[in-house]
Amino acid sequence: MSVRIEIEARCGDARAGTLFVRGLRVPTPLFMPVGTCGTVKAMAPGEVWDDGSRVILANTFHLLQRPGLEVLERLGGLHRFMGWDGAILTDSGGYQVFSLAARREVDDDGVSFASPLDGSRVRLTPAFVVEAQGRIGSDIAMVLDVCPPAEAPAEVVEEAVRRTTRWAREAVRAPRREGQALFGIVQGALDVGLRCSHLEELAALPFDGLALGGFSVGEPPPRRAPVLAAVAPRMPADRPRYLMGLGTPGDLFDAVRAGIDMFDCVLPTRNARNGQAFTAAGRITIKQARYREDPAPLEEGCGCLACRRFSRAYVRHLYACGEILAARLLTAHNLAFYARWMSKLRAAVHAGTLDTLEGEARTATAPAT
Amino acid sequence: MSVRIEIEARCGDARAGTLFVRGLRVPTPLFMPVGTCGTVKAMAPGEVWDDGSRVILANTFHLLQRPGLEVLERLGGLHRFMGWDGAILTDSGGYQVFSLAARREVDDDGVSFASPLDGSRVRLTPAFVVEAQGRIGSDIAMVLDVCPPAEAPAEVVEEAVRRTTRWAREAVRAPRREGQALFGIVQGALDVGLRCSHLEELAALPFDGLALGGFSVGEPPPRRAPVLAAVAPRMPADRPRYLMGLGTPGDLFDAVRAGIDMFDCVLPTRNARNGQAFTAAGRITIKQARYREDPAPLEEGCGCLACRRFSRAYVRHLYACGEILAARLLTAHNLAFYARWMSKLRAAVHAGTLDTLEGEARTATAPAT
Repeated sequence: MSVRIEIEARCGDARAGTLFVRGLRVPTPLFMPVGTCGTVKAMAPGEVWDDGSRVILANTFHLLQRPGLEVLERLGGLHRFMGWDGAILTDSGGYQVFSLAARREVDDDGVSFASPLDGSRVRLTPAFVVEAQGRIGSDIAMVLDVCPPAEAPAEVVEEAVRRTTRWAREAVRAPRREGQALFGIVQGALDVGLRCSHLEELAALPFDGLALGGFSVGEPPPRRAPVLAAVAPRMPADRPRYLMGLGTPGDLFDAVRAGIDMFDCVLPTRNARNGQAFTAAGRITIKQARYREDPAPLEEGCGCLACRRFSRAYVRHLYACGEILAARLLTAHNLAFYARWMSKLRAAVHAGTLDTLEGEARTATAPAT
Repeated sequence: MSVRIEIEARCGDARAGTLFVRGLRVPTPLFMPVGTCGTVKAMAPGEVWDDGSRVILANTFHLLQRPGLEVLERLGGLHRFMGWDGAILTDSGGYQVFSLAARREVDDDGVSFASPLDGSRVRLTPAFVVEAQGRIGSDIAMVLDVCPPAEAPAEVVEEAVRRTTRWAREAVRAPRREGQALFGIVQGALDVGLRCSHLEELAALPFDGLALGGFSVGEPPPRRAPVLAAVAPRMPADRPRYLMGLGTPGDLFDAVRAGIDMFDCVLPTRNARNGQAFTAAGRITIKQARYREDPAPLEEGCGCLACRRFSRAYVRHLYACGEILAARLLTAHNLAFYARWMSKLRAAVHAGTLDTLEGEARTATAPAT
């Protein structure tokens, strides 16, 4: 198999092991920084690696439009184009297309939309999305799915599930780039029964891994954990389990406890650009006056680009001045924090002490006091 | 002396040697990247160093307002605050104040203005500006000067010169931080006679170096070189000669040929953020369609962060997407290009072949064909 997981330890439903991808052995559970357009915002690829990440996420939806498949192919594929030595998972574009709301039309065969860039008509089908990800050259491709918003009525969610299954079948039959893994995406909103039956349908298909999509689309966060706790343990044990688009340190804790292996989220990178640093003592909003003369690093003991050399006072100054270095330092820190948090979660699964991290998970998710 | 220069070679009026500052031996002529607010925009300090720079410029005008002298002092001075191991020259704020035009009032004792940040009243005097730079902790301080725009009538320029001299005398008498150098600033617009008499007045004062200010304030570029050629050679030979705010590779060539030792300019950093890369073959505007699939680095043989790993096609893609990494890569490249260009100019002065670089200077300044 192009991608496989070996589980080495269990702690309740939680699991820790190794993901084998692109010749790398990546400890799981793992977090993938988001590099939508072929760059993890504000970071050079070597810095992402040094911060501890080995797999990043890029978006088919964005790359299709810019720079386009032809450019990516001529430049040797996305890894080479962006200078990234790690692995790449590409999202299919489903989530983005369904965020466009009024600008798209979905039917049983695919989805059409007006490009937000130039208004041109784009058509995505399950087979084309597999082909596109092959041409992008990612290591893990995702199927095209229908991703309704949280407030969608039950019949819309059921229709989304039905179409996502239909498309999943088409995707596994589609010609695929050799060595590229393909993951299915389970929908079903907060309906555990629907989630489980959809999971069963997709688990029967020859996917290399399975993902839970359709979370973090507007649902109340407290309603997520119980659904995850009910669904994740039923995902195939021999394949990677990926929770898409989440989350806070607390979300990651909940999901790891439910048995998830892989995560991606814009939170560490986007919040960094908005002046927020994650620390074990809580989220720091760097513009606050209390950091004006604070000589301490963002987080004591952190080895990231920011904490090795710079004070909170300096990062605050840079942020106040709108300086690019503020985004860089905060992003570097947050990615290092996330890598460290995953490492703690893994160690706790191995040690059988995951539950002892719950307090730390909640503290790290809340604002620093 | 806190800062001194040793001249090791001459080629016509041009000179090459070593600037001794902050325990560093910096080959001259040298270029100082601009780090207005205590950061060379888009760069981490280690990258500025790796790109070949050893002295940067920061602005008293900006630092006074943000983060303020108290913060800088409590955090151990600007070097420590910003994590910069090289030397720092601070501009006095004269240039910025006089750019405010209607918002400032000048008299014989100083200048008052409304802060562009919060409208609060700020008063700069020659002695306070020396004190402020001492508290900032820069290695080289500049006097407060009156810097009129290029189109100013003769009597305004004469008044500016008179006040700048008066302020220079007050500045050299003002208490100064131990070990900090102080440079005078020669004004006089494009009037060679006025420039020379002003120079004579300032050269009589115990400055550690002298600067030519009031260039690149709107005058037609072709009128600059003859003035420089007439004035620069009359600057004291035993002290550093600094041309403020210039320029293109061609400007640097002209000024080195006239005997200038030190430069600063926003061009390599600002143009980078606007998508322009300097190369020996001319300036590249990266958004142009011709770079869409160009696998070459910005400049063949360059060892900067950008050229070591990334193609023009990738930098173009990043720039088109508004990605921070575009600004980083282009800035890193342009600073490396400027450091390399200064190194070429120095080598040519040592070899006595400076004139042979004129063609290359003009080519590098023009758009790439």
